[in-house]
Amino acid sequence: MLTEQELTAGATDEAIRRIVREELDQAAHHDTGAKHAAIIASKGTLDWAYPPLILATTAAASGMDTSIFFTFYGLNIVHKDFERKLKVSAIGNPAMPMPVPMPTFVTGLPGMGPLATGMMKSMFRGKHVATIAELLESAQDLGVRLVACQMTMDVFGYAQEDFLPGVEFGGAAAFLADASKAHVTLFV
Amino acid sequence: MLTEQELTAGATDEAIRRIVREELDQAAHHDTGAKHAAIIASKGTLDWAYPPLILATTAAASGMDTSIFFTFYGLNIVHKDFERKLKVSAIGNPAMPMPVPMPTFVTGLPGMGPLATGMMKSMFRGKHVATIAELLESAQDLGVRLVACQMTMDVFGYAQEDFLPGVEFGGAAAFLADASKAHVTLFV
Amino acid sequence: MLTEQELTAGATDEAIRRIVREELDQAAHHDTGAKHAAIIASKGTLDWAYPPLILATTAAASGMDTSIFFTFYGLNIVHKDFERKLKVSAIGNPAMPMPVPMPTFVTGLPGMGPLATGMMKSMFRGKHVATIAELLESAQDLGVRLVACQMTMDVFGYAQEDFLPGVEFGGAAAFLADASKAHVTLFV
Repeated sequence: MLTEQELTAGATDEAIRRIVREELDQAAHHDTGAKHAAIIASKGTLDWAYPPLILATTAAASGMDTSIFFTFYGLNIVHKDFERKLKVSAIGNPAMPMPVPMPTFVTGLPGMGPLATGMMKSMFRGKHVATIAELLESAQDLGVRLVACQMTMDVFGYAQEDFLPGVEFGGAAAFLADASKAHVTLFV
Repeated sequence: MLTEQELTAGATDEAIRRIVREELDQAAHHDTGAKHAAIIASKGTLDWAYPPLILATTAAASGMDTSIFFTFYGLNIVHKDFERKLKVSAIGNPAMPMPVPMPTFVTGLPGMGPLATGMMKSMFRGKHVATIAELLESAQDLGVRLVACQMTMDVFGYAQEDFLPGVEFGGAAAFLADASKAHVTLFV
Repeated sequence: MLTEQELTAGATDEAIRRIVREELDQAAHHDTGAKHAAIIASKGTLDWAYPPLILATTAAASGMDTSIFFTFYGLNIVHKDFERKLKVSAIGNPAMPMPVPMPTFVTGLPGMGPLATGMMKSMFRGKHVATIAELLESAQDLGVRLVACQMTMDVFGYAQEDFLPGVEFGGAAAFLADASKAHVTLFV
């Protein structure tokens, strides 16, 4: 509110600046960038399926307008057959915790991939972390947009009907349209 | 525009607030963050060379001021010898689509690396996706700044003349100067 | 400042718009998004420990309010035993520079992991790049907040006392609270 004196005199320079600063403060509180998250999921293994889904569901649960763009190997995550496609490989990742230390060449032997995949699933289940199936369902319930990359679908030979119901289709431009409005933009 | 009554009375508190909101709306439409993209390319394999180049060219084509910062293994992408340096390894990536299923230890045998690299090139070519050479050319035509990380060049023993013409050189501070103005910041 | 004529007449529409634009310009210069960086460190190998620490210390040194969220394999970086846990694997990364070219199956043999790790440490030391220990110390000196992901700590069986002094603990929501204020948000 302008003071009575200001009203009488017409609004002064200083009074106007004060009002502008008040409005800017207001606007900053609904900073739209802070309300959007745009995440790329590009990896197709079980371990790397968790971060985009956990981040997206957490963002959406806190009221952010959230989308995940699945591209390259990340298409596995929203493929109808994701349960079978998402595996882990211990090989090439010395940071992967293994029940017993083993030299790299052993981690490449037949049977070690399924062993590592089973181990990771039971580690997560043991700590009551949601499964990928549950995270996908939560994401959709919370309104997270799941977008499959049309270009890499073509390259890898996938059709739209290969993907989970509710998945949308778009290109890099679709991702950038979302991301250019968002503070949180992550390439997983 | 103020109404005639407002002009006569001097601008009122409410009239000023209305003008401020109009100007804020305007300003939001040229939200400078939305017009900048700063991408880090840190991987040096053929598959991971595509995403930063596709995202950057798409961003630049839509009018965004775009830069890619090539660091660590990502230096391969702007190395003069990128055609030979960019390979794929099927090993350690169970998400990599293979023509026939094969156990992990087979993917490590001599000859499998070149096979996977050739296969990926032909998959992309078959779908008329631009090659890395074409994407690099488009990026430069569209004004994408290509910056090689000076520190990792030193560590890996590269000289400036090892890189493609037009590549600039800078450090993490150069990337952050760009990224701190951009909504779209991605680490690939 | 309004001109004398404007003061006499009461502030006009145009004069107010000019003031608003001046204030907006000012506000853009202390764009709070430009002053925050929120980085996720999710990889647990020696090579991928460098980028989040180098980016974070550079950001903090330039006055940005910076945090790193360590999750999944990235927990290794702030584990008390990080010196032993951070290794590199040449396997599965054909972009890793090796002293002599070697077929993939050789990089998987016992002894090649330690060789690659030692080689990388000496490459960085030779170029006077700070060690991980030094980067962690700088980060803390510069006020970078180091946050370990509570959920993945539980999954991997870590306790709070397994981590370096000064490390905080939080979840994805803690990361998003920081990231939603920041232009620079990176998933390493």
